[in-house]
Amino acid sequence: MSPFEKVLKDPVHDEILVEDPWVWKLVNSAAVQRLRRIRQLGTSYLTFHGAEHSRFTHSLGAYETMRRVLRQLQRECGWPKDHHTRRLALSTALLHDVGHGPFSHTFEAIYPVHHEQWTKRIVLEDDELSSILTEAGPGFPDLVVGVLQKDGRHPVLQQLITSQLDVDRMDYLLRDALNTGVSYGRFELARLIRSLSLSGDQILVKKSGIHTVEQYILARYFMYTQVYFHPVTVGSDVLVWQILRRAQELWGAGQLSDMPLEIFAMFEGPDKALSVHDYLAIDESTLLYAFRMWTRSSDEVLADLSQRFLHRRLFIPFVRPEPSPEEWAILRTAARGMGFHPDYYVSGRKSEMAGYVYRNSGIYVEETGSQPVELSRHSRVVRGLEPDSEFRLFLPKEMVEKNGPLGDRVRALLGISES
Amino acid sequence: MSPFEKVLKDPVHDEILVEDPWVWKLVNSAAVQRLRRIRQLGTSYLTFHGAEHSRFTHSLGAYETMRRVLRQLQRECGWPKDHHTRRLALSTALLHDVGHGPFSHTFEAIYPVHHEQWTKRIVLEDDELSSILTEAGPGFPDLVVGVLQKDGRHPVLQQLITSQLDVDRMDYLLRDALNTGVSYGRFELARLIRSLSLSGDQILVKKSGIHTVEQYILARYFMYTQVYFHPVTVGSDVLVWQILRRAQELWGAGQLSDMPLEIFAMFEGPDKALSVHDYLAIDESTLLYAFRMWTRSSDEVLADLSQRFLHRRLFIPFVRPEPSPEEWAILRTAARGMGFHPDYYVSGRKSEMAGYVYRNSGIYVEETGSQPVELSRHSRVVRGLEPDSEFRLFLPKEMVEKNGPLGDRVRALLGISES
Amino acid sequence: MSPFEKVLKDPVHDEILVEDPWVWKLVNSAAVQRLRRIRQLGTSYLTFHGAEHSRFTHSLGAYETMRRVLRQLQRECGWPKDHHTRRLALSTALLHDVGHGPFSHTFEAIYPVHHEQWTKRIVLEDDELSSILTEAGPGFPDLVVGVLQKDGRHPVLQQLITSQLDVDRMDYLLRDALNTGVSYGRFELARLIRSLSLSGDQILVKKSGIHTVEQYILARYFMYTQVYFHPVTVGSDVLVWQILRRAQELWGAGQLSDMPLEIFAMFEGPDKALSVHDYLAIDESTLLYAFRMWTRSSDEVLADLSQRFLHRRLFIPFVRPEPSPEEWAILRTAARGMGFHPDYYVSGRKSEMAGYVYRNSGIYVEETGSQPVELSRHSRVVRGLEPDSEFRLFLPKEMVEKNGPLGDRVRALLGISES
Amino acid sequence: MSPFEKVLKDPVHDEILVEDPWVWKLVNSAAVQRLRRIRQLGTSYLTFHGAEHSRFTHSLGAYETMRRVLRQLQRECGWPKDHHTRRLALSTALLHDVGHGPFSHTFEAIYPVHHEQWTKRIVLEDDELSSILTEAGPGFPDLVVGVLQKDGRHPVLQQLITSQLDVDRMDYLLRDALNTGVSYGRFELARLIRSLSLSGDQILVKKSGIHTVEQYILARYFMYTQVYFHPVTVGSDVLVWQILRRAQELWGAGQLSDMPLEIFAMFEGPDKALSVHDYLAIDESTLLYAFRMWTRSSDEVLADLSQRFLHRRLFIPFVRPEPSPEEWAILRTAARGMGFHPDYYVSGRKSEMAGYVYRNSGIYVEETGSQPVELSRHSRVVRGLEPDSEFRLFLPKEMVEKNGPLGDRVRALLGISES
Repeated sequence: MSPFEKVLKDPVHDEILVEDPWVWKLVNSAAVQRLRRIRQLGTSYLTFHGAEHSRFTHSLGAYETMRRVLRQLQRECGWPKDHHTRRLALSTALLHDVGHGPFSHTFEAIYPVHHEQWTKRIVLEDDELSSILTEAGPGFPDLVVGVLQKDGRHPVLQQLITSQLDVDRMDYLLRDALNTGVSYGRFELARLIRSLSLSGDQILVKKSGIHTVEQYILARYFMYTQVYFHPVTVGSDVLVWQILRRAQELWGAGQLSDMPLEIFAMFEGPDKALSVHDYLAIDESTLLYAFRMWTRSSDEVLADLSQRFLHRRLFIPFVRPEPSPEEWAILRTAARGMGFHPDYYVSGRKSEMAGYVYRNSGIYVEETGSQPVELSRHSRVVRGLEPDSEFRLFLPKEMVEKNGPLGDRVRALLGISES
Repeated sequence: MSPFEKVLKDPVHDEILVEDPWVWKLVNSAAVQRLRRIRQLGTSYLTFHGAEHSRFTHSLGAYETMRRVLRQLQRECGWPKDHHTRRLALSTALLHDVGHGPFSHTFEAIYPVHHEQWTKRIVLEDDELSSILTEAGPGFPDLVVGVLQKDGRHPVLQQLITSQLDVDRMDYLLRDALNTGVSYGRFELARLIRSLSLSGDQILVKKSGIHTVEQYILARYFMYTQVYFHPVTVGSDVLVWQILRRAQELWGAGQLSDMPLEIFAMFEGPDKALSVHDYLAIDESTLLYAFRMWTRSSDEVLADLSQRFLHRRLFIPFVRPEPSPEEWAILRTAARGMGFHPDYYVSGRKSEMAGYVYRNSGIYVEETGSQPVELSRHSRVVRGLEPDSEFRLFLPKEMVEKNGPLGDRVRALLGISES
Repeated sequence: MSPFEKVLKDPVHDEILVEDPWVWKLVNSAAVQRLRRIRQLGTSYLTFHGAEHSRFTHSLGAYETMRRVLRQLQRECGWPKDHHTRRLALSTALLHDVGHGPFSHTFEAIYPVHHEQWTKRIVLEDDELSSILTEAGPGFPDLVVGVLQKDGRHPVLQQLITSQLDVDRMDYLLRDALNTGVSYGRFELARLIRSLSLSGDQILVKKSGIHTVEQYILARYFMYTQVYFHPVTVGSDVLVWQILRRAQELWGAGQLSDMPLEIFAMFEGPDKALSVHDYLAIDESTLLYAFRMWTRSSDEVLADLSQRFLHRRLFIPFVRPEPSPEEWAILRTAARGMGFHPDYYVSGRKSEMAGYVYRNSGIYVEETGSQPVELSRHSRVVRGLEPDSEFRLFLPKEMVEKNGPLGDRVRALLGISES
Repeated sequence: MSPFEKVLKDPVHDEILVEDPWVWKLVNSAAVQRLRRIRQLGTSYLTFHGAEHSRFTHSLGAYETMRRVLRQLQRECGWPKDHHTRRLALSTALLHDVGHGPFSHTFEAIYPVHHEQWTKRIVLEDDELSSILTEAGPGFPDLVVGVLQKDGRHPVLQQLITSQLDVDRMDYLLRDALNTGVSYGRFELARLIRSLSLSGDQILVKKSGIHTVEQYILARYFMYTQVYFHPVTVGSDVLVWQILRRAQELWGAGQLSDMPLEIFAMFEGPDKALSVHDYLAIDESTLLYAFRMWTRSSDEVLADLSQRFLHRRLFIPFVRPEPSPEEWAILRTAARGMGFHPDYYVSGRKSEMAGYVYRNSGIYVEETGSQPVELSRHSRVVRGLEPDSEFRLFLPKEMVEKNGPLGDRVRALLGISES
């Protein structure tokens, strides 16, 4: 009889191979299938229309990348030694994002529990998932959580799952680049994987792979500066955040009753613990449907913000230094004068651009006859890539285009000449 | 001042150019933005995980393809002569799918109004859209509808929008192939476009372009047989249809009250005319949210079917001849004996595989010194591609795997040996 | 110590892996390295400027394809059982084209020994090559020749090396498509390979792979009709043939002495057996250098033809039925009247377009519970692809453009209206 | 009548368009066609087997890139104003490499005339070329030479043809990356071109294009460090240089007579001016044929070096600091002891790695309301890329592997442990 094998066509890896029926069960669990209803890049599709891919496809991709990394380490270093560690690696790669909610980071602003915390709870508490995992051995869900939370029991796996050179990034950079249609995020995955080595518990890069890793780090740099923190996308996140904030406040004041059940549960906050079952019922369709309901709200702010999101009438971003208190005051006064509630229509955000961090972390390069050396010692290119940040101010288009003295003050502050 | 230009990165066309601010307004209308919330390939993402792209991205792609086709015909044949026809071409390409609902064809099974009918109504009745269109001239919305409904007033545009060689197909074949990750749907778009010519009112293909057109037709043939009518996808459509059918019946019997407002309106049927405004509020998130609600229904059939869809526990397809009345009876009896309502759990569907139709339609090839000749006269390859059909039977996995005499009867009928 | 591994970057396969140092020795033998100086597609680069790749890169690609096919058959069918057969497969794939001369088929027209005959002699007689091969076992060169000549001792290898579904075609279709820049030759190599199976001594295609094989066959059909037998390329071949023919005749008449040593040896013909050593000294640079010398020949025909080739003033092709004897006479008379020697300037050629041959050969598809079935029984697409042929007439441009009555007669015969 | 248009399929640009019959004549001139017989990357194909593309394909690519750049500048800045400047731009792009000899820079080591000098002479002195050019206006060849030699008459064209952001580099980076199969050289050509602007006589990059230019500069950095100055390639260049040097010395001493005519002329040196006609007769086939002849030389050094090149038995590169005089002496003594002439078998070379030079040159970025700013002021990434250099020592493999005390001394010096 021919062995178990599922082949999934994939736009990034061409083919994703599932060779273990146990992994296939995990793929088909409700918790993993739910990720099909959560977009990988949140609101980015409003900036790059192709960015419509889900966290599900990325999760499969991270799994496949791990499978290839294991094949490399197996062939070259004889690691991992046992089937158990192999399954731990593959399942953790597949499940690493299982706790994400819709518009993930914005969502966390309303319900302040980090998605990693949810991942932990889902792995341990979801009946279906934990029971499949336990088929691989007693206490298996706990091992998965341990790797994700870096408890130190599986140092190699920890590095492969979350470090500056992990299977998560390897897949998402390539996948996000393909779907947005940009060419930044490209690097040679096969060669990068083949340049990996293992010394004791440390993942190293071979000297011959330095330039391949440079490309990978540059890919990340470009994707962060050009795609992930695109001002229009950040402005869309701010809009989602304002909608949820307004809804939560109205609900708190007893003035909002029309919304999906799951949102109620969420608004009650982490004290009234939201069950894993209820959390898993929240996906992007839940939020989009809530926004749809709220377009009919009697609260004008909520109705307007919701319509802005659904019909893509986004906030306009201005890349500039953070306003002084006086400047904030001018903007808020102008907003009020134009009929916009300043708490919801005037806002700013500082975005941290990821780069390459080489103090106390970093990627290490194999040396013959001496200790591994941190990458930036070899590479002039990555030395320039320390993280940076940029402030953006967000306003509704109307505030900027408004005729009359109020509009003039806004434009003067922004340095926009009359058009 | 530099001219208006919006450049959108695109995974298929690399870049989509909007050079007319009027087109940009159409793109940003609520009716077009809604298409971001409707997947291009319906349930195909449950078979090909990458097929998560929306009708919005395809609409942009059809627009871009039209833009390139116009550039070709302009350069080579001096057509179109006026700005008005050009705008009609671009806007019709952008709007041709604006009437699609979620899981489009299945949706029509419940609410029997064809999506083209909705497109017509939206173009004419949606305030925002018809007012933008009217900026291009009085009666413009009516012209758009005329092209889509082939009223004969713009024969060239009709061919470019809906024929066997149209901008709709050119874009979706390439886009669906890229996203599913298959290599079938590839053809040389630039060369295909350059091979187009115009003779009077008829779009022709130059003789030098015959093999390029062959590739395009083969691309379509492969996409239909391998992707669009993949048995697992068709089974997913059947599942959506059964959910909606059950819900509608329960609602008709007054036994279902828990559902989004928009669904109610839909269930009331075409007699109580659903307004364009209400129709536009229905997108995939609405349906997915309804399915989510129904997983909690007290009706076991509805709850189970909804869970099957959300958690991807799909029907199993069997490609085989249509069962005889006796065979249907056996299957239904077995289903009932296993606790499955046969009306919802035992079904079949005949899928029509598209090919190339050359009787009374067809693509015509330019000839020097004589009348254009239909493509199949030149090409042995396309002659073999007349449309065909295939029957598939769909059953829940449990029916096929069940132990005991009932399962044995099902397996015997399906020719499955015991495993 | 880490195992032997050479990784070669490749535009088609991304990476080519050599894991056996013995194979690496074969790659670095002088006979194989010589293939770097012979273009894979002969004169095609004069039609498709990108077609500059050599038989060396294709040979590496055929080797790599075989390596992947073996991995598939090993995993699925446990074949081949021994290291010896594996080496036979890999080396035969690498060496299958080692006997090719420059502008291969044209070359054979002058020195009537088929390149397969040369491959045999080189494998057996070249000291370096046969001694490396013999390291794999006594009589190994003879086994390689046996596979290439289909002596029946290794039926599976024979099919993998030369049949309608072999590693040679799999590589060259993809490689030639990439380099010419056309999109015809694409098919899913990974999936095609994974669809291969083995039943006894017969290579079969799994039922799930039918459409992948269809694509492969269509790729070949398109490459033959659009690239390999492009009229301009065939005309360039005819030009090379006329140059060599003229030179050989002059040499036979004692009127040509200025040419590379190796060409002399060749002109003496197969009776005075050209040694393997001398044959291997003939590559494309030898011929190009000879053409260069002949541009200075005192024979006007030879000098003119050589200049036409080097400066790309090619014959003009006319696709039309073969001329009648009367028409030939008209053309020859006109040529003579314009100062062109009709034996060298007026010629025609019938090109056989490859397709899919299913009588007495064909590709076979695996069936459950019955004998394998030939592909065309399953596939309507390939049934239309029986081989065909096309006649082309070649003339110098001047003959067609010449003013006056002679030119008029030529144009009248060709049906060209005055311009 | 439809306008003149030649469409050439191209692996990099998909299609190259020639819309001016005058350009088509230039393409088909003997001087341009000769570039088909000179590989773009010299000996790189001995390291990256796919690098077999010619300077002809690159010249077409530079032309096409210029065509697209002109379209952008035309649309955005209305430049160039006249047909004459447009033709000057296109022809200079096409002809910029027309003076290259085979294995270009090595060739110049023997015949010390720079290829740019040859380009000048060919444009001015080759009858066919200068007469076609003159069709565009009297003195046109002189204008072409003026742009290439930066005489200041056409500052914009000079920048587009030779600067740190020119059409030459744009094409060769993409083309070399594709053919070698690496992924380094990729950047978004369409977007880069669209980011170009013109202020007075200066080419600028728009602020929105900064990251696209960063990618382009990184592409160059990677191609230089990873491909162009790959140690194996540099070693192959050194080998060619040693062959030519040895041959020239033997010829000077009257000990070498067996070689192509054209080589004689070359060896006579720049004093006895080699005519343009003779120079154009030298292409890669001439040199390869000379090497072939020399494998039969009675001079053992020349015969051995020639065989090493043709059969790819290259020098082994050692990346290390330049040897001290004592170390050179040790290596030379060892070589002599092993029978290798130290002047030809022991050598080293320092390779200058290109980066981004921003002092006194550099790429300038458009600023609103102020002077353009040099790129490195904006980009941390490019600041790290100042040119660098690396020394490599080259030795025959035998010297390193030789048993006994001589081999031991070599290995000790190189720090190689016994294997």
